[in-house]
Amino acid sequence: MSVIDDLARELARLPGIGRKTAFRLTHHLLRQPPEQSRRLAEALVAVTERVQRCTRCRNYTESPVCPLCADPRRDAATLCVVEEPGDIAAVERAGEFRGLYHVLGGRLSPLDGVGPDDLAIAPLLDRLEPDGVREVILATNPSLEGEATALYLQRQLAGRGVTVTRIARGLPVGGDLEYADGVTIAQALAARREMP
Amino acid sequence: MSVIDDLARELARLPGIGRKTAFRLTHHLLRQPPEQSRRLAEALVAVTERVQRCTRCRNYTESPVCPLCADPRRDAATLCVVEEPGDIAAVERAGEFRGLYHVLGGRLSPLDGVGPDDLAIAPLLDRLEPDGVREVILATNPSLEGEATALYLQRQLAGRGVTVTRIARGLPVGGDLEYADGVTIAQALAARREMP
Repeated sequence: MSVIDDLARELARLPGIGRKTAFRLTHHLLRQPPEQSRRLAEALVAVTERVQRCTRCRNYTESPVCPLCADPRRDAATLCVVEEPGDIAAVERAGEFRGLYHVLGGRLSPLDGVGPDDLAIAPLLDRLEPDGVREVILATNPSLEGEATALYLQRQLAGRGVTVTRIARGLPVGGDLEYADGVTIAQALAARREMP
Repeated sequence: MSVIDDLARELARLPGIGRKTAFRLTHHLLRQPPEQSRRLAEALVAVTERVQRCTRCRNYTESPVCPLCADPRRDAATLCVVEEPGDIAAVERAGEFRGLYHVLGGRLSPLDGVGPDDLAIAPLLDRLEPDGVREVILATNPSLEGEATALYLQRQLAGRGVTVTRIARGLPVGGDLEYADGVTIAQALAARREMP
């Protein structure tokens, strides 16, 4: 195996990149100045070495508390619960939300063996009172598992003195929050409704 | 700028990878064990540090002479001339060709300022006699520029005691040799015709 084959094989591990695309990307990089490959390599290493989880919301961050949680202008009384850190970036791109976030780290999925104890649900309940949370927006994906997770959370949050809302079904059903466009996300936030 | 944004920006420099795909790949890597990012980074650095050009055929190689040129079972009398090293891998995948290669390093393209002196044409002419070449297969791409390059080479090779053939037009016109499938490449090689 040559180092060229090694690089193509590693690139082909990425989702959506097949054998032919990996080959094409490898030969593209070989034609570029070596600085481009080196910068990509450095960015990969920097991410593995410096990215950690925010101790408050479990977002990706380079400091113990992420810039969103550390921003005093954000409204701590409104908490948006998402499945993955990538969902935070998607909601932030919409530019409409001024509250804080909580990352579950996934969704309930009995088939994959993911139960409530595998998600950051206890830390969510624990931060409601100290953070002065008044509304919890459930922004799990509008998929079957995301809806089931929202229903489970709704029951856990009942009787804890917070309004529980669900992000509107403006998102295409079966879709993925991470890839939605900002306008759709903004509309879905604006049309959120209290869970009955 | 966070290191996560850095990584997404570097990935978005790759051809065919837009801003959203780069974001998706970055978050995919964050979810994987850090070893995966580190292996990709190491493969990138290894390629920049260890890949050189074969002194005989100008293929990518990790030794002064590439494994193809160093293989005594290959037929040095038949030389396949290609535009880029990626084309060699494509022809090799077809599994039909037992000769050696010569990489031009591009194609004639007056609009891009690429003339004969920018391609490895002189080294091609210089190796014909010492290598005992009897047939030169012109396997430049079946594009306008690839055809023009083949015609130019045909004239340069005239009167030098070698048969000049052109890879058959079994390849889709306007296509790119690097991405063709093995069967098409094999048929195109088998149906090659002597240039009149």
